[in-house]
Amino acid sequence: MWAFARKDPRKPVYSAKVATALALITLLVFLREPSDIVSHSVWAILTVVVVFEYTIGATLSKGLNRGLGTLTAGGLALAVAESARRIDNLDIVFLIFITFVVAFGATLVKLHPKMKPYEYGLRVFLLTFCYVTVSGYSTGEFIGTAVSRFLLIAIGAAVSLAINIGIHPIWAGEDLHHLVAKNFAGVAKSLEGCVDGYLTCMEYERVPSKILTYQASDDPLYSGYREAVEAQAQEETLLGFAIWEPPHGPYKKMKYPWVSYTKVGGALRHCSFAVMALHGCILSEIQAPPESRRVFSTELHTVGKEGAKVLRELGQRVKTMTRLASPNVLAEVHHAAEQLQRKIDQRSYILVSTDRWGEATPRQRGHGHAGAEGDKDKDNDAPPGPEHAVVVNIGAEYSVVASSSSSLARFDSSASASADGGSGCLAFRAQASWPARLPPFQQGGLPFDAVEARTYESASALSLATFASLLIEFVARLRNLVDAFEELSDNAGFKDP
Amino acid sequence: MWAFARKDPRKPVYSAKVATALALITLLVFLREPSDIVSHSVWAILTVVVVFEYTIGATLSKGLNRGLGTLTAGGLALAVAESARRIDNLDIVFLIFITFVVAFGATLVKLHPKMKPYEYGLRVFLLTFCYVTVSGYSTGEFIGTAVSRFLLIAIGAAVSLAINIGIHPIWAGEDLHHLVAKNFAGVAKSLEGCVDGYLTCMEYERVPSKILTYQASDDPLYSGYREAVEAQAQEETLLGFAIWEPPHGPYKKMKYPWVSYTKVGGALRHCSFAVMALHGCILSEIQAPPESRRVFSTELHTVGKEGAKVLRELGQRVKTMTRLASPNVLAEVHHAAEQLQRKIDQRSYILVSTDRWGEATPRQRGHGHAGAEGDKDKDNDAPPGPEHAVVVNIGAEYSVVASSSSSLARFDSSASASADGGSGCLAFRAQASWPARLPPFQQGGLPFDAVEARTYESASALSLATFASLLIEFVARLRNLVDAFEELSDNAGFKDP
Repeated sequence: MWAFARKDPRKPVYSAKVATALALITLLVFLREPSDIVSHSVWAILTVVVVFEYTIGATLSKGLNRGLGTLTAGGLALAVAESARRIDNLDIVFLIFITFVVAFGATLVKLHPKMKPYEYGLRVFLLTFCYVTVSGYSTGEFIGTAVSRFLLIAIGAAVSLAINIGIHPIWAGEDLHHLVAKNFAGVAKSLEGCVDGYLTCMEYERVPSKILTYQASDDPLYSGYREAVEAQAQEETLLGFAIWEPPHGPYKKMKYPWVSYTKVGGALRHCSFAVMALHGCILSEIQAPPESRRVFSTELHTVGKEGAKVLRELGQRVKTMTRLASPNVLAEVHHAAEQLQRKIDQRSYILVSTDRWGEATPRQRGHGHAGAEGDKDKDNDAPPGPEHAVVVNIGAEYSVVASSSSSLARFDSSASASADGGSGCLAFRAQASWPARLPPFQQGGLPFDAVEARTYESASALSLATFASLLIEFVARLRNLVDAFEELSDNAGFKDP
Repeated sequence: MWAFARKDPRKPVYSAKVATALALITLLVFLREPSDIVSHSVWAILTVVVVFEYTIGATLSKGLNRGLGTLTAGGLALAVAESARRIDNLDIVFLIFITFVVAFGATLVKLHPKMKPYEYGLRVFLLTFCYVTVSGYSTGEFIGTAVSRFLLIAIGAAVSLAINIGIHPIWAGEDLHHLVAKNFAGVAKSLEGCVDGYLTCMEYERVPSKILTYQASDDPLYSGYREAVEAQAQEETLLGFAIWEPPHGPYKKMKYPWVSYTKVGGALRHCSFAVMALHGCILSEIQAPPESRRVFSTELHTVGKEGAKVLRELGQRVKTMTRLASPNVLAEVHHAAEQLQRKIDQRSYILVSTDRWGEATPRQRGHGHAGAEGDKDKDNDAPPGPEHAVVVNIGAEYSVVASSSSSLARFDSSASASADGGSGCLAFRAQASWPARLPPFQQGGLPFDAVEARTYESASALSLATFASLLIEFVARLRNLVDAFEELSDNAGFKDP
């Protein structure tokens, strides 16, 4: 408990403020000032306990809800009481009936999703209406009850507000601002962690079941983006309170654009989902072989680093409320992504297994279409190679798996390329005897289905393509985040750096 | 408002129940039964308004919180009052000091995240303590205040409970059950929509900004998985209430495993994130060419259909609380995924552009490693082909773009494959003059950077690989979902089908 209080000193400060307000009300009761406070002191105490919320915005919103609910209920109850007085015999029946109707209506309205911000006000309305009707009828002092009750609520609310705003105020807007800014760093850390973890072939021996059921977990890769995703509910709650707050501190504008902060938070969330998908590649059972990851290591690492740099830069800008220094903060990460894409382009043979290309049925192969492609293929009209031999040969290839696992990125250019000489067209020989990269559990000399192993190999190679592709998608989503940030910095009038 | 009430008839029923309870309390006050109800009627009304929640679990939990808070606060206030009576002069100072200390402590405890379920109890504790201390001191009737207050709270709580459980009870557990079951269908719809949308080359002219900032939207692909993801908060709230509910209806077991339902919900969420990533491929700027999508059309469609079938099946099982009929519900979707993987394996040349393979620097190419691969390459020791000619040739290739856009899946087997004849090794000629699939805006005869266009082409081809790979990842995650379902069906004792 002490550790918790020391971590955020605003919490004991808030507790002390509540305690001060209550002690003050207690003092007023003992001083019997105002005079009717003793019999109705409960209203002042209740108001303080209920209205004195952590942030100013919440206090104001609850206070207003309470005030409005009390006023309208009081007015309605007075009108109902006047009508009841004119009916002689059935006044009790009439009052009970009205109570039923009002309670039914208020409760139904309260359940409507759009009425969520006014839920508390409707509750107070119902309570006040019943109380004033009932106690007023019993004692005959309708107006007296309503007035003294309202007076005491006003006292409670005034004390709450004065202490809450006067002493070390805690603003919901400030909390929202810091929450949005804080999450950038978490996503950046997750992104870097995912890319670097992928390159070092990090693997989960057993994926934590908390991740599989999307619960909070300590995993550093996971918690960073999860917090950004989970922050949504809190951002919306804080937004609901922040719009009630008067201009304060650095948020001087009238109608401060708090909603732009939640939009930046939403755009960050959209990026977080891309990081989540990257993490999914690490969690996946099918893993790309370490050697092929190493081929793209520099490029992947650079994209991850530059992406995280952009996130941290934006987070810092949000935090310090300054505009972006350069018009194109994305230049470097875009350059890195292009480098990665180009490298993929050059080395895409690593990402697929070419051995079974020949298994395509003949009518799908080049022959039928070669003519449509124009003249360039004419020089190449040699007979097709024996593609089906691949299948025959698979068994032979497996024998070399163990010895070749360290050789990668091989492009077998040793086959004769005689047909190309001098023609305007190119023909490469794809490496036919691609080394099979088998999952370790299948290397123990077990008999296994060669086709399945091949399928696994191709899947594991594609997994690297997926990772790279998702990383590029992440970079693409940064544009949207920068746009949201720029909208925020315009609307909120951020300083020039 | 009426449409809203008619959509879920439980809402007007609940409102009528609240209204009945309040009308009953009003009647009791008018009958002056029990006799002290008039002066303290507020407590009974307050209790009904505050404790009468929508679900039974919430009512019980709030009622218990309220009861415990009142009892402990009453006891503490009596003890404090006794002590105050023994101090003669400083009793007021003492009471105010104690109020401050108790308010400080209770508020600080309330802020602790672990105390969230007891927040309401602590609020009531604080309110009661202040009220009993203050009004008891003023009137000198400590015990009288506490007892009559408690009595009226008990009356209010008893009326609330009797009416809430007696008439058409709404159970949080049932809501949780239906919520978890309902989301399966939404995710299934999203999955099918994403796969079919991808195959029909669905594109967003402009991605809705609500999706980019992860807000609720009507988009049918989006809302299905989003609802499953967003349901988390509601599931947790309902779980918090459901554990308070006594066995009822089909949930007859003592200690019913409600938490297993949220685990199934969490596992479904983990699958939803895979669907979200699939949707990301549709949202992405970089799109695979329609022709290559068509090549995998049957397989992708089957995986999507089978995956959705598994989801619907599980959802139906959860809804009807029956076990799975066959031990391996995943057989078909796994088979479909294998078919897809095999097709990818055969046609992976569609997923990459091979033209620039030759640009790899010589030391990374096969020569250095060929020996390590064993004997099989020996026959192939022809000199390397002129790979760098690719770059030179790029311009020429573009001239055929327009005419070749409809020909796909071509495997240029026309190049001579002379080196393979009779050897144990295979060599295929990859299609050198892969037709460039350019984005439409680049086809207008504009001069553009050939390298960049090539990069775009390769990225767009990889995007199909990513989609397929993510779909397979989705299938892999189904295992986890089935496991969670089986744990639930064991723990909750689901019927055999």
